[in-house]
Amino acid sequence: MNNVNASIITIGDELLIGQTIDTNSAFIARALNEIGVWVHRRVAIGDQAAAITKALDTEKEMASIIILTGGLGPTADDKTKDALCQYFGGKMVINKDALQQIKKLFEKVYPNQQQIIERNLQQAEVPDVCTVLPNKRGSAPGMLFSTGEKNKDFKIFISLPGVPYEMEGLITDEVIPYIQKNFDLPAIVHKTALTAGKGESIIAEMLSSFEKDLPKEIQLAYLPNYGLVKLRLTAFGHDKQTLENKIEPYFQKMLSLVHDNLVTDKDEELAAVVGRLLIEKNKTIGTAESCTGGYIAHQLTAIPGSSAYYAGSVVSYSYEAKEKILGVHHETLLNFGAVSEETVTEMARGALKTLETDYVIAVSGIMGPGGSTPDKPVGTVWMAVADANTIQTRQLNLRFNRQKNIEITAARALNMLRLFICERLV
Amino acid sequence: MNNVNASIITIGDELLIGQTIDTNSAFIARALNEIGVWVHRRVAIGDQAAAITKALDTEKEMASIIILTGGLGPTADDKTKDALCQYFGGKMVINKDALQQIKKLFEKVYPNQQQIIERNLQQAEVPDVCTVLPNKRGSAPGMLFSTGEKNKDFKIFISLPGVPYEMEGLITDEVIPYIQKNFDLPAIVHKTALTAGKGESIIAEMLSSFEKDLPKEIQLAYLPNYGLVKLRLTAFGHDKQTLENKIEPYFQKMLSLVHDNLVTDKDEELAAVVGRLLIEKNKTIGTAESCTGGYIAHQLTAIPGSSAYYAGSVVSYSYEAKEKILGVHHETLLNFGAVSEETVTEMARGALKTLETDYVIAVSGIMGPGGSTPDKPVGTVWMAVADANTIQTRQLNLRFNRQKNIEITAARALNMLRLFICERLV
Repeated sequence: MNNVNASIITIGDELLIGQTIDTNSAFIARALNEIGVWVHRRVAIGDQAAAITKALDTEKEMASIIILTGGLGPTADDKTKDALCQYFGGKMVINKDALQQIKKLFEKVYPNQQQIIERNLQQAEVPDVCTVLPNKRGSAPGMLFSTGEKNKDFKIFISLPGVPYEMEGLITDEVIPYIQKNFDLPAIVHKTALTAGKGESIIAEMLSSFEKDLPKEIQLAYLPNYGLVKLRLTAFGHDKQTLENKIEPYFQKMLSLVHDNLVTDKDEELAAVVGRLLIEKNKTIGTAESCTGGYIAHQLTAIPGSSAYYAGSVVSYSYEAKEKILGVHHETLLNFGAVSEETVTEMARGALKTLETDYVIAVSGIMGPGGSTPDKPVGTVWMAVADANTIQTRQLNLRFNRQKNIEITAARALNMLRLFICERLV
Repeated sequence: MNNVNASIITIGDELLIGQTIDTNSAFIARALNEIGVWVHRRVAIGDQAAAITKALDTEKEMASIIILTGGLGPTADDKTKDALCQYFGGKMVINKDALQQIKKLFEKVYPNQQQIIERNLQQAEVPDVCTVLPNKRGSAPGMLFSTGEKNKDFKIFISLPGVPYEMEGLITDEVIPYIQKNFDLPAIVHKTALTAGKGESIIAEMLSSFEKDLPKEIQLAYLPNYGLVKLRLTAFGHDKQTLENKIEPYFQKMLSLVHDNLVTDKDEELAAVVGRLLIEKNKTIGTAESCTGGYIAHQLTAIPGSSAYYAGSVVSYSYEAKEKILGVHHETLLNFGAVSEETVTEMARGALKTLETDYVIAVSGIMGPGGSTPDKPVGTVWMAVADANTIQTRQLNLRFNRQKNIEITAARALNMLRLFICERLV
């Protein structure tokens, strides 16, 4: 069985001048990968007919499935539909179902506006050589073109809107079922683990001979991110169940080799691991954040169902908030400063009392670019984790920009809490 | 003068299976764009020598500047350096400066570990046909290869590490100065404005005849994002100052056409606009967040210098936190529920009192997937903005997933606050 390769083409000048970060490709890649389609290239191009034509020419040489997103909006800078119509030699016709959907959508969004804007009605026009994929979440329909015949150089080209919510609905409801029905797909199995506390080089050293002895159909990849390292084993083959049986002992061996640094043996975020621990043990958590400004709270509450264990956060950016809500002593702030072991200790104690949770995290630091003092440079952070009986503190000296300092502090604090909980639950 | 085109090639399987979102390309594109280099394609490929070679072949046909990131790590899944060495016909040699940098770095990170791991020392090996670009922030040096001669089919190929912090340092310190010195660059000028409260179609309708009358060297692009629409005018030409003079009257005309929905006439985030307003008027802000779980606080504190106006947030996820810290009445929660006009009103009043700020935002809602009730489906949100004299409330009915519901609620709440402040400061 041959691999089925896919290329993703994202269209829009905003992706090229760096004004927008492409999150669509990651969603599409994950969805395709799960059904055994290998996305071997992703290409971002501008909103010009010539660039679209060139990309179609290049990618169809290398892939059987070509997915395009973006460039289908109602404005004049969107050129994709015309370019596709010309490329596949069709002419524009009104699609009745798409027209119906646009009218329905506009009645809902603008109930008091009888007249639908002409340019949105034009979104119901599609090339007569495509199959329309209905977009239940928006006004631009998906379009499917194909060349060749099944089992004989069969290639498909699918154009989807760039709005993530609409694109995601179309991928799940239309694209994935179509590909599963029309292509003979191999199996791909991924097994992912997350480690913390050691850098990529050290983890790689631990796994050095393990990696050398892997059979060629199993690959190991390292995905480092702020002191966390994701490890991913991937196996390719004919049958998913066989692959799962084959990869499992290697995965277990890998887990045992990184045991002391293992956070989870699933493909999940650190905040989800912490959440699972808390649910299992029926414990609650609160946070007192200064420098991270609510980012730890956001990480925790991004997990569905987090209200079961997450009480809340006091984001105490000002001295007054630290004193008034968390009961940090004015003298502590004056004598030791907001970024000190003494202050985070009092923040943690205050949060335990105010939020009435089993555990708390407290952080205070200087994220930059301003705010440093001679003895406390940018990147100085104090963290504390505590329960009613014990408090642990730790200092970080980070060397990144504001955004990265916030992210790394949140990751370190969540991992510190995870270890704290684990120690106490043995 | 011809346009100087660039292609960005990002290397790593994690980008293809959707495990990592590519933020590097956006950074590089912004930096190149600023000096007049047009990034016309971005390609993401896997970590295989064949894919790297193929991408170099394809992109060099279309671009004079090819920037590669990723695949330079110390682990066996990183193939970029060998592939480049072979492509440009060199052999591997130790670079003394890079070796020195690796030793220095490891002494700092692992002061107690005398022995530097062999695989990191190997990162100092580079092809003898490249110019080394020193990486002050990490262990993998940048590499520059070139073909042709200046003003005669001159092309450069630059390979950078994939770690964002290291890549960013190399782009700023090495790559940009090199390109400015060695290429004859055209000028590009962007002018960006942000609107709120109307969808892309309506804004496009307002700008319809304006857009038709634009000269061909000025282009208009629409970048919609959750009820906010960015509008970008781009002009190309020979000289930056001439372009700026030329684009300005068009930009002013555009601003006047969308005047009622204009948030800012700069390329900045909504939270930065709110911050600027507060600094100008010497006012402070606090937040009381339930459903957004700290995300509004994070948006506000992501702006450098926000401690000048941001006091803090009470992230009151539980009933208890709402009652105890914000003084929401138990009866209010029982009678109307946590997601109600009554509750957000009391949250806002409580936050004003607790945080002692001039303004507050309060939000409570159901972000999904769980938590809905028959009369309050997922996506029901109540928001309030207030000062000492006035309170305004508003209900949202969102239809997205958890993450998008959180993001859109934060954007709407920040814009509601912005309008509230503007009304009061006239």
